[in-house]
Amino acid sequence: MKNASPPAVVIVGSVGLDEIETPRTKRKNQLGGSASYACAAASFFARPGMVGVVGTDFPARCRATYRRFGIDLAGLQARAGRTFRWGGAYEENMNNRRTLFTELNVFAEFSPELPEAYRGAPYLFLANIQPALQLHVLRQMRRPRFILLDTMDLWINTAFGDLIDVIGRVDMLTVNESEARHLAGEPNLVRAARRLLDLGPRYVAIKRGEYGSMLFSARGIALVPAFPLDDVRDPTGAGDTFAGAFLGALARAGRIGEDAIRAAMTYGSVVASFGVEDFSLNRLGRLGRADIEARARELRRMGAVR
Amino acid sequence: MKNASPPAVVIVGSVGLDEIETPRTKRKNQLGGSASYACAAASFFARPGMVGVVGTDFPARCRATYRRFGIDLAGLQARAGRTFRWGGAYEENMNNRRTLFTELNVFAEFSPELPEAYRGAPYLFLANIQPALQLHVLRQMRRPRFILLDTMDLWINTAFGDLIDVIGRVDMLTVNESEARHLAGEPNLVRAARRLLDLGPRYVAIKRGEYGSMLFSARGIALVPAFPLDDVRDPTGAGDTFAGAFLGALARAGRIGEDAIRAAMTYGSVVASFGVEDFSLNRLGRLGRADIEARARELRRMGAVR
Repeated sequence: MKNASPPAVVIVGSVGLDEIETPRTKRKNQLGGSASYACAAASFFARPGMVGVVGTDFPARCRATYRRFGIDLAGLQARAGRTFRWGGAYEENMNNRRTLFTELNVFAEFSPELPEAYRGAPYLFLANIQPALQLHVLRQMRRPRFILLDTMDLWINTAFGDLIDVIGRVDMLTVNESEARHLAGEPNLVRAARRLLDLGPRYVAIKRGEYGSMLFSARGIALVPAFPLDDVRDPTGAGDTFAGAFLGALARAGRIGEDAIRAAMTYGSVVASFGVEDFSLNRLGRLGRADIEARARELRRMGAVR
Repeated sequence: MKNASPPAVVIVGSVGLDEIETPRTKRKNQLGGSASYACAAASFFARPGMVGVVGTDFPARCRATYRRFGIDLAGLQARAGRTFRWGGAYEENMNNRRTLFTELNVFAEFSPELPEAYRGAPYLFLANIQPALQLHVLRQMRRPRFILLDTMDLWINTAFGDLIDVIGRVDMLTVNESEARHLAGEPNLVRAARRLLDLGPRYVAIKRGEYGSMLFSARGIALVPAFPLDDVRDPTGAGDTFAGAFLGALARAGRIGEDAIRAAMTYGSVVASFGVEDFSLNRLGRLGRADIEARARELRRMGAVR
């Protein structure tokens, strides 16, 4: 995957060192952050370029991990100070998580600046960062073919105006169920998703974790199942893994119609299901395209509606 | 649907008068109970026979409703006393429900006795009643072709031995996610379902409400989506509606292999999605086979995994 061609998929998000507690174990200094998960997942399909920031404490082993995935790091800034750190703990059924701590560190002053080679990229994922910074990225891009946007409750509460602005400038918005309800101010998920479409994007993807995802568009609704797992070790980053693999698969397909979107969401679902089978990027690091294709076939078989 | 042929599907469960509170409205004396929902849902596909008990206060209008669905009532006992009553309240998103009251009344002394014409029926649904009573029904049946069993947390806690006994004598067990975890003593749903298969049934169906259902068997897992609704008025009885329509569709298909089971689950999902669009059996009462087939086609389109 190593080559000097410009990235096909630009991904802007957080890079962090995570502390993860599950009912069975605790891990410190795990490579994490939305940009890490999304770039690693995209790398199976297209060349990703990372836009993020790390501190001087960022371990060389983590950069080596990125390079093994073939991630372009020209957009990864190194700043004096400590890397963003986050800690979370999962309950027994792995569905509920509480945040233990958040240390923004160098991420507090992050201003995403795109290398020249990134500005003409056709595919862009604006992972969950402040909407004003997402707008700053959009101003630097020339004419991306497809823009995917993620956000979170914090920005709905604190930066609503900027968020509505950026939502109106993207092709697809991805949020989870509670964010969709919150952002739309509507408890029914179908009606909430329709209101989000009215804000501008052609597609709204609702992430439902182990229940899969839903795609809303003018053509209606598509349902994408999650792959059922008998061993979930760390769900951290599953949404970003989904988004990264989705956008990578879309870039590889070279089409952006609804059938291509649905097929790319299946790949998002599949790669995310691998990702949660181990901590950090560990499972993705042992993954090959053949594994992905085999599980995608299995998911199509499981999900075929008779 | 009115004729004197013996029922193809025998359904044993509760008959009650419900009080339902939703964020927008409150309804009293709604015809409810597992047998009511399951029989009405099955009636679109095969002739159901109801086994249950009502009190002397049971309204003539409710019997008339049953007759309009073509439900055989030879197994519906009338006893001196009041009919079973239950009250429940739903929260804003319609997913969380709390029980307001339960008055067992004549249901407390219920002993299901099957009319002679029911005992040779090929399809049997043991809806959620005390496992000892479910075993009593099984002893009266000659040689049913397919037996579906439902249960609840109460019986896992208070009648575990009888419950395990009856689970070992049925073809398919249907439980919701938390019941599956509780019954198997295993937080991971896939592992929990495998343990339930080890108890004897060839099929385990996990109901996940608005997220659809999962079918587990020796052949693996199948995922059945729920139909996304933009107006849920009353989710009461959705699981029993699913089960009744499933078993009716299976009876009509005349096959009990895995493909037939999956197709029947799609019909269960579709009829349940209509049922929750109004209170009690109101929506099912306005429903026709053409509506069911149209929504089944739509669900297959939405759920096709690309």
